[in-house]
Amino acid sequence: MDLELKYLKLKEHFKNAKVIESCAELIGWDERTNMPPQGADLRALQNSALSKLHHDLVTESWLGDALNELASESVNLPADSDICVNVREWIRVFTRANKIPVTLVQEFSKTFVYSQQAWQDARSQNNFVLFQPWLEKIIDLKRHEAKCLANGQVSYDALLDDYEPGATSLELDSIFYPLKDSIIKVLHSCSKENKRNLILGNYPEQKQKIFSEIIAGYCGFDFNAGRLDTTAHPFCCGIGPGDCRITTRFNPADFSSGLFGVLHEAGHGLYEQGLDPDHFGLPTGTAVSLGIHESQSRLLENQVGRSLEFWRFIYPLAIKFFPDQLSNIPLETFHKSINQVRPGFIRVDADEVTYNLHIIFRYELEKDLLSQNLSVKDLPDAWKAKMKTYLDLVPDNDATGCLQDIHWSAGLFGYFPTYLLGNLYAAQFIEKAKKVIGWNSNCLNLDVLSELRQWLKKNIHLKGKRLLPGKLCENVTGEKLDKKYFEQYLMQKFNS
Amino acid sequence: MDLELKYLKLKEHFKNAKVIESCAELIGWDERTNMPPQGADLRALQNSALSKLHHDLVTESWLGDALNELASESVNLPADSDICVNVREWIRVFTRANKIPVTLVQEFSKTFVYSQQAWQDARSQNNFVLFQPWLEKIIDLKRHEAKCLANGQVSYDALLDDYEPGATSLELDSIFYPLKDSIIKVLHSCSKENKRNLILGNYPEQKQKIFSEIIAGYCGFDFNAGRLDTTAHPFCCGIGPGDCRITTRFNPADFSSGLFGVLHEAGHGLYEQGLDPDHFGLPTGTAVSLGIHESQSRLLENQVGRSLEFWRFIYPLAIKFFPDQLSNIPLETFHKSINQVRPGFIRVDADEVTYNLHIIFRYELEKDLLSQNLSVKDLPDAWKAKMKTYLDLVPDNDATGCLQDIHWSAGLFGYFPTYLLGNLYAAQFIEKAKKVIGWNSNCLNLDVLSELRQWLKKNIHLKGKRLLPGKLCENVTGEKLDKKYFEQYLMQKFNS
Repeated sequence: MDLELKYLKLKEHFKNAKVIESCAELIGWDERTNMPPQGADLRALQNSALSKLHHDLVTESWLGDALNELASESVNLPADSDICVNVREWIRVFTRANKIPVTLVQEFSKTFVYSQQAWQDARSQNNFVLFQPWLEKIIDLKRHEAKCLANGQVSYDALLDDYEPGATSLELDSIFYPLKDSIIKVLHSCSKENKRNLILGNYPEQKQKIFSEIIAGYCGFDFNAGRLDTTAHPFCCGIGPGDCRITTRFNPADFSSGLFGVLHEAGHGLYEQGLDPDHFGLPTGTAVSLGIHESQSRLLENQVGRSLEFWRFIYPLAIKFFPDQLSNIPLETFHKSINQVRPGFIRVDADEVTYNLHIIFRYELEKDLLSQNLSVKDLPDAWKAKMKTYLDLVPDNDATGCLQDIHWSAGLFGYFPTYLLGNLYAAQFIEKAKKVIGWNSNCLNLDVLSELRQWLKKNIHLKGKRLLPGKLCENVTGEKLDKKYFEQYLMQKFNS
Repeated sequence: MDLELKYLKLKEHFKNAKVIESCAELIGWDERTNMPPQGADLRALQNSALSKLHHDLVTESWLGDALNELASESVNLPADSDICVNVREWIRVFTRANKIPVTLVQEFSKTFVYSQQAWQDARSQNNFVLFQPWLEKIIDLKRHEAKCLANGQVSYDALLDDYEPGATSLELDSIFYPLKDSIIKVLHSCSKENKRNLILGNYPEQKQKIFSEIIAGYCGFDFNAGRLDTTAHPFCCGIGPGDCRITTRFNPADFSSGLFGVLHEAGHGLYEQGLDPDHFGLPTGTAVSLGIHESQSRLLENQVGRSLEFWRFIYPLAIKFFPDQLSNIPLETFHKSINQVRPGFIRVDADEVTYNLHIIFRYELEKDLLSQNLSVKDLPDAWKAKMKTYLDLVPDNDATGCLQDIHWSAGLFGYFPTYLLGNLYAAQFIEKAKKVIGWNSNCLNLDVLSELRQWLKKNIHLKGKRLLPGKLCENVTGEKLDKKYFEQYLMQKFNS
């Protein structure tokens, strides 16, 4: 069949491009786990070569006609058929990539190696000035990129679209600002009693790692098809089928910090491991958006990992691992301790309530940086002012302030809001999941975890990019994304 | 200048190809250190994509004319000038690559991922049959490759040429067979008294790693531009400037085993780190041959690492690290223990005398496999017979017999002889070095190690491929390669 043959040719081509991308992923993982300090120059060359190659592959001139032909010939097939989904997404990739000159792509990929090194130095030396020129350069590049992409669109939206297809800042504003008020309401109603220190102690790192691996394994992360490493900045890297890598950092004083990091990344990992391996390299075998991706990590970290019923299941094991530290702490006290709400400087250590405020003010700041309403040199002060407004805190240095996150150094503008979208999706998904699987408030054991994973895999992971994120949410939960689920979740859990 | 511009264009092109190759190197390193068990399918796709890409780049049709033009225009320049060297080597690469169909290249790179997995399984289960079909396939591929390359050449020589440019099996035969006799003579004259067990004990792995890193650092391996990891099969991977990675395995009973592994790989590492970074990606910035490469590792491992004068320098530190195990052992006894000559099954654990016999019989076997004088199914028995002849030993299983080495599973036919060439070069180089630097028989301290490294860097590393290996040897030592230096070294050291 002619259509089928044309489709096969494109499939092969885009799969090849994805294999090159997966090499870049692996090299990126290595950069953050293993690369020696002096490896940056070579890494910049490698990144640049691979990204140019990928760009060349997805912009080859024959693709335009071939894609159009295929689109018109498949017009009568169901919209969620493999051909229609993949052709739609290939056209999106081809169109986007063709708007961006390859020189810009190469400039990006080189710059990010150095800017991340500069950011690391700046953070460890608590000296924003070391990072400033790099951030300026990155913002220039991102504004250039947005200009290439935007068809009369707001610059920010052109970038956002890369992470959350179809989302706009107008829409985000309309969700985030009312949400902010309800979050602040919850925050004020939370108990001020500090239970967080109760579980502090001395938790050997090696033991933490083994314990975390067992728990991630309970939740379904497959260590035959993945691994866990220790890095300064936790992340998940889904290189491809059979190879998904997560990282965490351990706090010797508090084993829960490393563990929740692992659960978060394992949530991402379950998504990557749950994609259809037969569709590797195709949009139908690729995660739909970062917002949905983040929902999977937040769901495992919070709705599962910080729930009382989960700890009913794993606390006995935790006590076996850390008897000196935990055996005198009752389960309920422990559970309160890991759910302490308290404004703090560091986003990744934030509780489920204040976390969202961290995101909203970063979202505001990055919009201002891109639109040049805020200049890079004024970022440290603007950061402090925002933090004061949102969290009533002022960091006394930039290392725990505007230098804390890796994103801007890596050019990830438009990425932060997906963390909050993830929280909203997670709350809506879990509400639905609880209705259809055997999760009751008693005990979240291996059977329930397995049911939950199967449900997520069937309804979300295996779908790939068949539906846009909003439509996927409707399909899974029967409703459009609605922030009320998250608000209810927070109210129920934290309104004391 | 026109010539200069044409040269620049080619330089850029081949450098790009090398960057892609360096990505493949890094991915290969990862495969042997980090890849999860189920990552093999994806890795095969990645290897295949990168090797195809590299092959495409170095065989592009415009290169032929451009290279010829450049060669004829630079005919009056000195033969060791950058242009002449690089053009000569590019022509070699272009010509070789054009003889091999890209489908074969891809078939190779895919096959090796699986054949290495099969070999690992076969070895760990001590079951040659698991590996047999893969080895048969590999030999088919290599024979096909040799046929493409050979212009009336012996098949084996066509493959050998890839590792040791210009070498032939005729020439190797004429060196190896007389050498065999003198080695066996030394072997018979060695003391039979077993001192090897004297230093056995319990050496914690973490302490071994730190100690090894210190010693490798003393020898000049730069950990800001490299790293040390633990793997089942030690190797060195020179990814590029600023990023050279070595691995070792530690034996909890004998710290010298891991340490000599580190020194061996660090010797390779010094070569990689000593190449001219400004010539990265060019033949002038690439190691000349595997024989010379191996000379650098054997020199550091043996001529330095197993010498009494080196241990005069580092033994006090070794005792500080391992007081319970070593403080009662006098230096001289320790030195005898690490130089015990004793035929054994495992090549990488072999002493300096018997090591060479391991190589010679592997060389014979692989020639027979390629020429089909030996069929794969008969390899285990042929191995046992050779070992009996050469070392008067018969392994009682294939795991410690014909399955012990990684090379054949990775298609490295023609590689083994470079280990023995390395020993010969090392002995000849060190003889010269001792004459010009401050190495006396008293103490090999940091100053002398530094002098030695500078000498090697200046005379060998920085030369890249400016001279062919034989010519380089002549330039460095004033003489053609002569096995007498190695024979003298063995006689002096081991004739008791």
